[in-house]
Amino acid sequence: MVLTHQQEETEIRAQIDAWGAALRAKELEKIVSHYAPDAVSADLAPPLSKRGAEALRRNFKEWFRSWIGPIGIEMRDVVVTAGGDLAFAHMLNRIHGMRTSGEATDLWVRATVCFRKIGGEWKVVHEHVSVPFYMDGSFRAAVDLKP
Amino acid sequence: MVLTHQQEETEIRAQIDAWGAALRAKELEKIVSHYAPDAVSADLAPPLSKRGAEALRRNFKEWFRSWIGPIGIEMRDVVVTAGGDLAFAHMLNRIHGMRTSGEATDLWVRATVCFRKIGGEWKVVHEHVSVPFYMDGSFRAAVDLKP
Repeated sequence: MVLTHQQEETEIRAQIDAWGAALRAKELEKIVSHYAPDAVSADLAPPLSKRGAEALRRNFKEWFRSWIGPIGIEMRDVVVTAGGDLAFAHMLNRIHGMRTSGEATDLWVRATVCFRKIGGEWKVVHEHVSVPFYMDGSFRAAVDLKP
Repeated sequence: MVLTHQQEETEIRAQIDAWGAALRAKELEKIVSHYAPDAVSADLAPPLSKRGAEALRRNFKEWFRSWIGPIGIEMRDVVVTAGGDLAFAHMLNRIHGMRTSGEATDLWVRATVCFRKIGGEWKVVHEHVSVPFYMDGSFRAAVDLKP
């Protein structure tokens, strides 16, 4: 029998919503506070992966600066699995808005987020965000897909 | 306090090893048996994500046919977090070998795998495999990265 863990799932959904609000408003300290100090993240940009909330802080800081005004973020198909002191979630996120380069960004990504309860608080210990790429020989990132 | 769950971690590592052996030997039924019927997967190729072990079966079947002989797979930086009836793991996988197209494949990917114990057995309920892409305006998938 698979037990459902309604309370933990509600807590994780609140975490995800708060993370989205921090991203939208480009609140650096708030967004970094969601991560464990040794969180391992696999992002849209190279390298393959990196370790540590400090690396994430540098990345978010630089990335936030590349947007004019708030960052548009829309999440759908959010599936949360939670129990005890572990949880994971996956979803499709639309990221959109105007860049300081003058270009518009509008793309859908897949996101997987893994949580652990540390000192009574849910922290992200692993995050994986990506788009697929076309297998037609072009090796082009599929930044034009829609769910 | 964060509890460690040594037994579950050992079980998950055995699952990952068995999955790798099934991939290497292109054993379709064995590899599909690792997934829950409604597993959601985000793969190297479009779409953004798909649902169901049957979709995975079709993909593996087609993909296995595109390799001459066994598929080379090497896993490193495998981190497993397990507890109760949930677990997740992330790792870097090198996939290499000769394709029926006559080309050689040799690339490193990031993989995140989320497990749930269903009917007493660990099953993959979510899998996310990707490479990043270059942010130099080329939108080219970074298939040449090394850990």
